[in-house]
Amino acid sequence: MRTIDVIARKRDGLELSQAEIEAIVLGYVAGEVPEYQVAAWLMAAYLRGLSRAETFALTQAIVRSGVTLDWGERQPSVVDKHSTGGVGDKTSLVVVPMVAAAGVPVAKMSGRGLGFTGGTLDKLESIPGLQVNRSAAELKAQVEAIGLAIVAQSAELAPADAKLYALRDATATVESLPLVASSVMGKKIAGGAPAIVLDVKVGRGAFAQSPAEAHDLAATMIDLGKAAGRRVRAVISPMDEPLGLAVGNALEVKEAVRLLHGEGPSDLLAVSLAVGEQMLLAAGATADEAEARDRLLATLSSGRAAAKLAEMVAAQGGEARVVEDLSLLRRAPLVETVRSPRSGFVVDLDARVVGETVVALGGGRARKEDAVDHAVGVVFWAKPGAYTAAGAPLFDVHAVDGAAARMAAERILQAYVWGAQPPPRRPAVGEVLA
Amino acid sequence: MRTIDVIARKRDGLELSQAEIEAIVLGYVAGEVPEYQVAAWLMAAYLRGLSRAETFALTQAIVRSGVTLDWGERQPSVVDKHSTGGVGDKTSLVVVPMVAAAGVPVAKMSGRGLGFTGGTLDKLESIPGLQVNRSAAELKAQVEAIGLAIVAQSAELAPADAKLYALRDATATVESLPLVASSVMGKKIAGGAPAIVLDVKVGRGAFAQSPAEAHDLAATMIDLGKAAGRRVRAVISPMDEPLGLAVGNALEVKEAVRLLHGEGPSDLLAVSLAVGEQMLLAAGATADEAEARDRLLATLSSGRAAAKLAEMVAAQGGEARVVEDLSLLRRAPLVETVRSPRSGFVVDLDARVVGETVVALGGGRARKEDAVDHAVGVVFWAKPGAYTAAGAPLFDVHAVDGAAARMAAERILQAYVWGAQPPPRRPAVGEVLA
Repeated sequence: MRTIDVIARKRDGLELSQAEIEAIVLGYVAGEVPEYQVAAWLMAAYLRGLSRAETFALTQAIVRSGVTLDWGERQPSVVDKHSTGGVGDKTSLVVVPMVAAAGVPVAKMSGRGLGFTGGTLDKLESIPGLQVNRSAAELKAQVEAIGLAIVAQSAELAPADAKLYALRDATATVESLPLVASSVMGKKIAGGAPAIVLDVKVGRGAFAQSPAEAHDLAATMIDLGKAAGRRVRAVISPMDEPLGLAVGNALEVKEAVRLLHGEGPSDLLAVSLAVGEQMLLAAGATADEAEARDRLLATLSSGRAAAKLAEMVAAQGGEARVVEDLSLLRRAPLVETVRSPRSGFVVDLDARVVGETVVALGGGRARKEDAVDHAVGVVFWAKPGAYTAAGAPLFDVHAVDGAAARMAAERILQAYVWGAQPPPRRPAVGEVLA
Repeated sequence: MRTIDVIARKRDGLELSQAEIEAIVLGYVAGEVPEYQVAAWLMAAYLRGLSRAETFALTQAIVRSGVTLDWGERQPSVVDKHSTGGVGDKTSLVVVPMVAAAGVPVAKMSGRGLGFTGGTLDKLESIPGLQVNRSAAELKAQVEAIGLAIVAQSAELAPADAKLYALRDATATVESLPLVASSVMGKKIAGGAPAIVLDVKVGRGAFAQSPAEAHDLAATMIDLGKAAGRRVRAVISPMDEPLGLAVGNALEVKEAVRLLHGEGPSDLLAVSLAVGEQMLLAAGATADEAEARDRLLATLSSGRAAAKLAEMVAAQGGEARVVEDLSLLRRAPLVETVRSPRSGFVVDLDARVVGETVVALGGGRARKEDAVDHAVGVVFWAKPGAYTAAGAPLFDVHAVDGAAARMAAERILQAYVWGAQPPPRRPAVGEVLA
């Protein structure tokens, strides 16, 4: 088979065989298929789409490009969790300790932020000393010992995904449902957890712009996981406005820790509970949603979830006292409070603009190789639904200097929309698929 | 401007500005835009198409990537000629000497064969000693001195085209009307001739599969040339069956030389006259087609066209006696005559299969870097329209050994179709556009 013929077939909208897709993906990882041929193939796949069978073959090829972890049989089983990414999305920092404290082992492999969306690894690294690079053996030992870990995807797992993602990122082929679905599920299947819960974000701050797209993406990923013998569930949650009040790495850790102590924004709590419930159900800890929720809430009121996070931080070399003393987190040199220019109801706050502004402050990456400033970001006093009086505090900018703070203030003011009436209440969690 | 945004805009079917297209093309030549980004852009351009304005901008960028020759004012003007490529297409070897002998200077830049189509440079190089690599100064001096030259495109002219073509060849993005049109016209405009005649092939052995596609391609190229201030004319000629009776480098030179001596296949003569007429008209040598034809035919009967070819061969370092003594051309070790398996009218002979078979014999290139065997090829005794008796000679295979000859014989027999009635006569030349 010649690579150029495979490209031409996809270009012409024909369905590729499993062998053809493997030849591209595994040939790329082996250095036998040049990057420019893969780039042309990716653009053809983006524009022509991939069938369900092709998407499954691509997922399998990504899994087969590296090693696969095996968590063995146990009850409840090990569970992994993935969010398709958003702005202010610190759900993992809340839900992973809660689920682990409820007795279900969590082995979560995370990614870094890219573009306007943040990444859990960057957030965790704002805790002094915390390490996210762990070998497969270290990961297993940690989950055995304390029941939870949040680590970087090992380079040995699904190496095709990292190569393909970097190439997609450079060739405008990221936002494709089959490419997104196979990328996520290739990594999750290689990670080996028998139970997987997906938090599929929908809205202008997410890949899926409409509920229908989010549903398709969730359903596709569930199919891919089930075909590989995994129990997969998905929660669809909105990403039109930032989740919670804090956006920025250390600021989000602070918000997550506060929530574990029982004090935090209701939208973040709602999403965390919805995802956590599905994790308990997928892991087989219970078959009852209400019971799952009660067990999770008990981990908050008892302090066990916060204690679990402290255990994890310590196990990964970090300063565990952070969980009790948030002043140990790094802080930006300048915090400026921006006041509301008018009175009225906040009816909208564009998550994408907020995400891009935090990247511009230095808190995210425009390119993969950029360094991240963990301290900078934005904390909102008022999100949609709130009434603001003119001159009342609207948001705080945490910045390196006054110029950066002014830039961010201007941009984020543009992200706000006011109205005379409060906006309709939007549910914090949408459809659940299993 | 970021390259990825330009790729994304083309991916989404938006029209790119001249500055955006220049950024891709000139950035690629300068080594600033990586090959994989250009590959993704090419696939997006292939699938989304390019508007007339984009095609013009691409052509201009290709021209601007290198130097441009200037042939100055003269009457008649210097003329260049280009064929979109086919099987057995030795028209240039016939028409360039005829037009030069008719008093119109011809500066022709040619290419090499690739895939199933042959290239004029490979054909010329089957003449012992002949050189096709000439500097711009040498090319000018030769045209001044003797009125004709057929040379390789200088690497200084339109270097973007060579890079883009090689990348298209490896990424299944060759067969795109705007990419073909801008590639041809970018080179021709950089070559500087004020008059350009295009021989646009149509049929299964050509890029354009239908007369409508050929018309569009010709009209687009004429527009591109006129926008750059050139006089451009086009002839559309069929490429369903091979042109003439010989396919293979030295074999085609032999056929062309014989035609210059007044003895050759009528389809090749018809196409050569049609193209030659348009060259005289475009150069401003005459405004009358009949007069142009008479002047061209006179160069055959007088022997002046053959003498011009000999002058050119000598000027380019080749063995000029070839024009009088064809036995000086290299010959294949084995010539096998294949006989007709049945009686009947030949109604079809697939040019593409013939072209691919000659490549398989060693007479063409599957990849750009392949070496070419100038001696091998096929010479037909019977083409569509002819009646063959079972056992009568059908074609000769010129090969390196018996195994190759058998392979070729089998494949070419598959390219023949017989019928009880002669096929409808097809005109040797189609539409003419000016």
